[in-house]
Amino acid sequence: MNLIILFKSDFIEGASRVRIQGHRFEHILGVHKPSVGDELRVGLLNGNIGTGRITLINENRVEMDAVLDREPPAPLLITLVIAMMRPRVFKRVLTQVSAMGIKRVILINSYRVEKSFWKSPVLETDSLNKYLIMGLEQGQDTIVPEVLIRPLFKPFVEDELPDIINGTLPFVAHPYASEQCPYNIGKPVTLAVGPEGGFIPYEVEKLIECGFTAVHMGERTLHVESAIAGLVSRLI
Amino acid sequence: MNLIILFKSDFIEGASRVRIQGHRFEHILGVHKPSVGDELRVGLLNGNIGTGRITLINENRVEMDAVLDREPPAPLLITLVIAMMRPRVFKRVLTQVSAMGIKRVILINSYRVEKSFWKSPVLETDSLNKYLIMGLEQGQDTIVPEVLIRPLFKPFVEDELPDIINGTLPFVAHPYASEQCPYNIGKPVTLAVGPEGGFIPYEVEKLIECGFTAVHMGERTLHVESAIAGLVSRLI
Repeated sequence: MNLIILFKSDFIEGASRVRIQGHRFEHILGVHKPSVGDELRVGLLNGNIGTGRITLINENRVEMDAVLDREPPAPLLITLVIAMMRPRVFKRVLTQVSAMGIKRVILINSYRVEKSFWKSPVLETDSLNKYLIMGLEQGQDTIVPEVLIRPLFKPFVEDELPDIINGTLPFVAHPYASEQCPYNIGKPVTLAVGPEGGFIPYEVEKLIECGFTAVHMGERTLHVESAIAGLVSRLI
Repeated sequence: MNLIILFKSDFIEGASRVRIQGHRFEHILGVHKPSVGDELRVGLLNGNIGTGRITLINENRVEMDAVLDREPPAPLLITLVIAMMRPRVFKRVLTQVSAMGIKRVILINSYRVEKSFWKSPVLETDSLNKYLIMGLEQGQDTIVPEVLIRPLFKPFVEDELPDIINGTLPFVAHPYASEQCPYNIGKPVTLAVGPEGGFIPYEVEKLIECGFTAVHMGERTLHVESAIAGLVSRLI
């Protein structure tokens, strides 16, 4: 945890004194091994970041005086449209995109997505938030990304996607594209990344019809986590 | 497996007929669900890539006629110098860098590396090769990256690193650097990435003395996998 996320319910006296118990308390104890007087980086969920000065540690809680005087880092101007994936991998991707500063993720279907993935409990709100908050702790940010779940490919692409890409440059990662992924484009981006094995040709065509440009990142097929980090870091 | 790696010992009749048994046979059966006559992408370890046409499948083996008529993708012109990390993470990083086409990885020590990590069996040659080959299968490549293990920071940086960076542009990823990581530099690169928590100031200074430029990728602290994929995809 590079930053400890505080919740409104942690505040016990006005705007500064916080009390942390339970799982997060144990985590702070194990990772930071803090002493009274130490300062830890903290941030209020969806609010400012700053410093928490430890005022009390006992066997079941830690208390801090929090000064939240800085804004969290600016969001990345990117909307990520990704095909649903194996839940085990999706958990890591949620944490990763949240740590990178992506604030809008749209999870879509694709022909090559196993249907069973859509039944995973990872898609429940509490679970999504858990992995997204882990990413905020890693990236030292406080703004929880929005995750939209759209399990029907065609209606999503035809009815919703045109509005979503409006005002952005839309790219779809496709290993057989003729165009290389551009660098440092300096504008808001919508980036679509397919499942293991890629979008099928019909899906790529639908995205191109919608206005997307198909781009590749070399001959190699990257795992979804490398592909997302690589494409995002190159584009923005 | 986007590509099935063949070993010289798989060849049973001259230069084309291969027989695959055991773990890899079961994996092919489970993942590709092949029939006789199907063609699978194959590549000879450290050799050419091509196609394997299935000639036989029975309860314990698959046989193919392999045509290896294409060179593997060109290597990325990058030497990656990374601090040792938690073995569970290192396994994934080995696979990732191999899939991305990085051919030289140097594993170094840093003040913030837990000493116990160096005792992990993941550092044994067979284990390194296992995770590197998984990356080749992912990235559709055949050339096994070289992994050098250098558990002493100072002698490595003073005695070996000057020769390693010779002819390359050397960068060290450092969250507090003033310079942003550049894009698409079109030259061979040496990239140094620190442990969770970063290199300590002394280590960054030693690398800068050696000729490295410290660069950042924004305010957020990325996990090592995202950092490697992001920096590499941006630089090359």
